[in-house]
Amino acid sequence: MTNRRSFLQTTAAAAFGSAAFSSQVTQAESSAPPNGLVHPGDVVLFQGDSITDTGRSRDKAAEPNNQAALGNGYAFMAAANLLTNTPDLKVFNRGISGHKVFQLADRWQADCLDLQPNVLSILIGVNDIWHKRNGKYDGTVEVYERDYNTLLERTVKAMPQVKLVICEPFVLRCGAIDDSWFPEFDGYRAAAKRVAEKAKAVFVPFHSMFEAAVKLASPEHWAKDGVHPSPYGAALMAHAWTQAVR
Amino acid sequence: MTNRRSFLQTTAAAAFGSAAFSSQVTQAESSAPPNGLVHPGDVVLFQGDSITDTGRSRDKAAEPNNQAALGNGYAFMAAANLLTNTPDLKVFNRGISGHKVFQLADRWQADCLDLQPNVLSILIGVNDIWHKRNGKYDGTVEVYERDYNTLLERTVKAMPQVKLVICEPFVLRCGAIDDSWFPEFDGYRAAAKRVAEKAKAVFVPFHSMFEAAVKLASPEHWAKDGVHPSPYGAALMAHAWTQAVR
Repeated sequence: MTNRRSFLQTTAAAAFGSAAFSSQVTQAESSAPPNGLVHPGDVVLFQGDSITDTGRSRDKAAEPNNQAALGNGYAFMAAANLLTNTPDLKVFNRGISGHKVFQLADRWQADCLDLQPNVLSILIGVNDIWHKRNGKYDGTVEVYERDYNTLLERTVKAMPQVKLVICEPFVLRCGAIDDSWFPEFDGYRAAAKRVAEKAKAVFVPFHSMFEAAVKLASPEHWAKDGVHPSPYGAALMAHAWTQAVR
Repeated sequence: MTNRRSFLQTTAAAAFGSAAFSSQVTQAESSAPPNGLVHPGDVVLFQGDSITDTGRSRDKAAEPNNQAALGNGYAFMAAANLLTNTPDLKVFNRGISGHKVFQLADRWQADCLDLQPNVLSILIGVNDIWHKRNGKYDGTVEVYERDYNTLLERTVKAMPQVKLVICEPFVLRCGAIDDSWFPEFDGYRAAAKRVAEKAKAVFVPFHSMFEAAVKLASPEHWAKDGVHPSPYGAALMAHAWTQAVR
């Protein structure tokens, strides 16, 4: 039995509470904590725009771990990945379609700080550039980065123990997205990464992931309009997110 | 910087080739191999019935890593999880709807041994019980276990280095599935687990996973007919599968 195999079996067993590999679990426990960033009892909050919102129920928003409240996208799928492993979590979604960083800030007390998350995941940015491009917003990439840094400084000041997950904004070259979005869009990606590094957050590189994914299937397969993921795109995001926090 | 954080960052960085956490990657490399069972250059084969088949293209079946050839289910989603991390793989799907263990055996030379997989994943069993229950098949759980053991002995004899992944058969209590399936179905689950243990395979406990998932959303949300997963069910399976082999 190699260490590698022991590690694998630990992962499989830890993921579902199987007793089959209990001796291996004990052996490998010290080197590879199965839960990573997320621990039993934690409140996990997903924040963002329409990609996070995904039709979530406002009526049920106060109920943790509720599918309708978590929507139909990566947030629900990531929650399911987590909760089938660690049932003792409270997972919420407060994404709102169309939002940019400054709109998160406007509702941050009620929609983040009041929930006292232990783990806070944010995916924001595509509207910051999209609404600028279509003339509905005058913010620049510098405004995006400044507002995002300010939001996280406020967050950490209010909740010094919070664990942050910053997700890379992404687009796929189809639907609403064409080559004219680049290299401007790369500037927003780089800004999000700097924000994550400054805040010592886990960074989930969704755009890089989709750049690899379009070698397997068309951009439309992952997100028909180039912005809003299909179930396949959302599943890939949820897996990447869950891997990143583990 | 704790070991836990280093492990997390290793996982996140390894998953997408990010350079952000390179110092942590070096630090943790020896304790937690990021790729686990699957290594660059490997051939990965998914085998099974309709849950694996999921409308895959027969015309394109010989093309590795092709979405049409991999179908619309957990096999494609798991392949995408793997391939966005490790592009240098060849992933195939040879699931065929309606098949039971003996029918895998009938086509094993062409649909498994000839492909020379390094990693072989099998999900089989629901038809072995379903077709028995509806009078179309006279095999019992003992026949299932015997045929399955024989198939794996033949496989390992032909390919001593193959790494095996055995997936637990699962059903959800909705659609075609009612309480009368139990405890008989649990016998098939237990048989699959014994088969996995005997073959020293990684075991992916899908039924246990779905038992946890129905606390988050209705059985129909995961699989409308109780047998064939929705995109949400398939995404959860793909994540669990990928976790288990890492």
